[in-house]
Amino acid sequence: MSLNETLTEQKSVLLAALAQDDAERLDALLPELRAADIGEILEDIAEQEEGLACFQALMERLPIERRANVLGYLPGELQLAWAAEIADEALLLVLEEMSSDERADLFNLFDEDRREALLRRMARQEREELKRLASYEEGTAGAIMTSDYVAIPSGMTVSQAMMRVRQTAPDAETVYQIYVVDPEGRLVGTLSLRQLMVARPGARVDDLMIKDVIGVAVDEEQEEVARLVARYDLLAIPVIDAEERLVGIVTHDDAMDVAESEATEDIHKGMSIGALEDGVSRVPLWSLYRKRVFWLVLLVFANLFSGAGIAYFEETIAAQVALVFFLPLLIGSGGNAGAQAATLTVRGMATGDVGVKDWGKLLGRELLVAGSLGLTMAVAVTPIGIMRGGETVALVVAFSMVTIVLFGSLLGMCLPFVLNRIGWDPATASAPLVTTLIDASGVLIYFSIATALLTG
Amino acid sequence: MSLNETLTEQKSVLLAALAQDDAERLDALLPELRAADIGEILEDIAEQEEGLACFQALMERLPIERRANVLGYLPGELQLAWAAEIADEALLLVLEEMSSDERADLFNLFDEDRREALLRRMARQEREELKRLASYEEGTAGAIMTSDYVAIPSGMTVSQAMMRVRQTAPDAETVYQIYVVDPEGRLVGTLSLRQLMVARPGARVDDLMIKDVIGVAVDEEQEEVARLVARYDLLAIPVIDAEERLVGIVTHDDAMDVAESEATEDIHKGMSIGALEDGVSRVPLWSLYRKRVFWLVLLVFANLFSGAGIAYFEETIAAQVALVFFLPLLIGSGGNAGAQAATLTVRGMATGDVGVKDWGKLLGRELLVAGSLGLTMAVAVTPIGIMRGGETVALVVAFSMVTIVLFGSLLGMCLPFVLNRIGWDPATASAPLVTTLIDASGVLIYFSIATALLTG
Repeated sequence: MSLNETLTEQKSVLLAALAQDDAERLDALLPELRAADIGEILEDIAEQEEGLACFQALMERLPIERRANVLGYLPGELQLAWAAEIADEALLLVLEEMSSDERADLFNLFDEDRREALLRRMARQEREELKRLASYEEGTAGAIMTSDYVAIPSGMTVSQAMMRVRQTAPDAETVYQIYVVDPEGRLVGTLSLRQLMVARPGARVDDLMIKDVIGVAVDEEQEEVARLVARYDLLAIPVIDAEERLVGIVTHDDAMDVAESEATEDIHKGMSIGALEDGVSRVPLWSLYRKRVFWLVLLVFANLFSGAGIAYFEETIAAQVALVFFLPLLIGSGGNAGAQAATLTVRGMATGDVGVKDWGKLLGRELLVAGSLGLTMAVAVTPIGIMRGGETVALVVAFSMVTIVLFGSLLGMCLPFVLNRIGWDPATASAPLVTTLIDASGVLIYFSIATALLTG
Repeated sequence: MSLNETLTEQKSVLLAALAQDDAERLDALLPELRAADIGEILEDIAEQEEGLACFQALMERLPIERRANVLGYLPGELQLAWAAEIADEALLLVLEEMSSDERADLFNLFDEDRREALLRRMARQEREELKRLASYEEGTAGAIMTSDYVAIPSGMTVSQAMMRVRQTAPDAETVYQIYVVDPEGRLVGTLSLRQLMVARPGARVDDLMIKDVIGVAVDEEQEEVARLVARYDLLAIPVIDAEERLVGIVTHDDAMDVAESEATEDIHKGMSIGALEDGVSRVPLWSLYRKRVFWLVLLVFANLFSGAGIAYFEETIAAQVALVFFLPLLIGSGGNAGAQAATLTVRGMATGDVGVKDWGKLLGRELLVAGSLGLTMAVAVTPIGIMRGGETVALVVAFSMVTIVLFGSLLGMCLPFVLNRIGWDPATASAPLVTTLIDASGVLIYFSIATALLTG
């Protein structure tokens, strides 16, 4: 049975128990489910008509710690919908159990009044902590880090450190990587719990720890954080502020979430779709429309250049209407080859495989590959050219094919570098943009060659 | 200083020391670098002219354990090039230090003779182990799992288990998740090292462990493995064979690598590019050509349908050459909207956000969104239609725009579901394929509407 089928079944059993108000059954079922699965089931339920009431009722049945955990798997709007029905006192109890990064995210969704009301009821230290975490800009290391890490002062022995790890264990996000700080709170080293476990109890942590720690600044972009975690196979990466003080860690699972959503964003950008806040099946229709319309309309106007090109060559076309037959074929092929080249470069840049210094090398490679591709496609199209319009038309079409594919591929390959140079995201060099640019150039190339060869 | 700049600098310092044969300098420099970085630097060096000799010389300078570690970061061909120069005895020493999954991967690259020669020199247990790991099909859980995990027999106390973890610590890939097996080797539970650490030493592991373990079958697809690790925020996921025996684990870092390469593969497929074995800047040119040419040539022929459509309407076109002006615009817009819809669906399916059961819901949503997009674009294009060809042409163009964008979007959204139904990878519904299909339909729709309205 696939995961999806299992979830669908569990959901219907839950809903049935809820409809029958079968408290016993519910309390038997809920503890068997994992937080991630409850989250998904609740999300499905909340979407249905009058589902919000069911959703609230199910949330109420979860023990507080569980509720805090499940909340972290829900989209922001649903967290907000749930919190709206909860009194401040009760809300604080759940907030306390949430991990510090998720708490800060939810807190940022509340309006000013609610935030003030909640802050007033908190202890000073908690309040400062929450305000600090909530203040980091979205998309930075600060916004995804947690402050629930294990830090020990420099100078401890292994057995002292072990004791400290045991004490912190229940609250920390991970206890498997331990950070060593000096009296000013600056990060001076790190070691793994594994290292601690196999070390002599009397050994000094400072002698065991790695001093050249891989860390990130609090305002580092989250993509870079994810890339470093993946590159060095880290369990967690420490985050430091401008004074080199340790202020948080980003754990491997949060880094993986970032990598996944960045990949989705890049794929969508590759089709000129703006970043969506949620999955395509759940994001509001209006938002989906907005994220797609901008480039589409812009490209309508860009496409007018193709039209202008055609208008310019109207005479050639009127004399040889057969030329129109090959128009979609030629500009389509150029667009496809160019979009391929752009995609390869953009993804290479995103994964770190391609750097700005590789430009010359890639250009040479693309020249060879695109040249071969263009020749192959010209050979494929020549017999059709002869059939439809005779040898001269075939020559025009074949020659145009090579030129357009070569030009399109080079444009597609170079555009991401150009965009990067002027400070834009290379992923903006999307297939639709590249295709549209090549369409317009393709029209000019094709009809210029036709005019030269057919009237010459 | 960015990571790339640091690496470039470290590389030139290393190369200088190597050229001067400055052994002291090299031995001071190498231990300061991380294995992932040495791997990248060595890869760059090996690519240069006569770089292979430098590469071999640097590998020789690394201590055996380090060498084994660095090897895991090199592409297969370079691992093979290195091994070709090494005698069996010396090779075995390094193989022994590699993690079991990487050892099996390298082993699979050797030819029959070398494999036999190496196996003959191994102890029986090692040999069986290696043969087993090397036998799993690529792309499955078995092929990416490691057999270096911590398993304890059911029935132990916490302090006994801790002792066992300490003993296994130096060799295991991760010691932070512990697996409990029955006398037949079947997986019966799991618990984290954190749980062990905070538990009473006399408590029984069987009372603490989670019995409902999330695991995967040894022939499960690697994408699914990565998806489960991400979904449940796991450090590692156990792999079981047909008899429910524990045979390996896949760790979070390997799962993250899979997720990244799957995302790259999907992005490339979205542009009709076959799976590359390496980064775009390093893969052989011939391979790059082959991975791109298949669909490009196929689409040349598919594009002929557009041409055929144009030929069919040649009379309409000859009578109204102004219609050609809007052709690239209309089919381009339809293609762009359709490619967007296809991309949203394909990525939604890949991340698990969209399931087959969501088809009806997505169709309804796409109908609304694409309808609005089509209307917006029709409004944008109407003034140009009036300017270029008068009111009737404007009407034809606007009406065609709505129809083509709506048709294209629905086609793009549905195609992945259709492909999935017939057992193909939905990612085959790439932008070039969708665009080409819409081009041909767009020509028919446009000129049909034109013929009807202009000659009616």
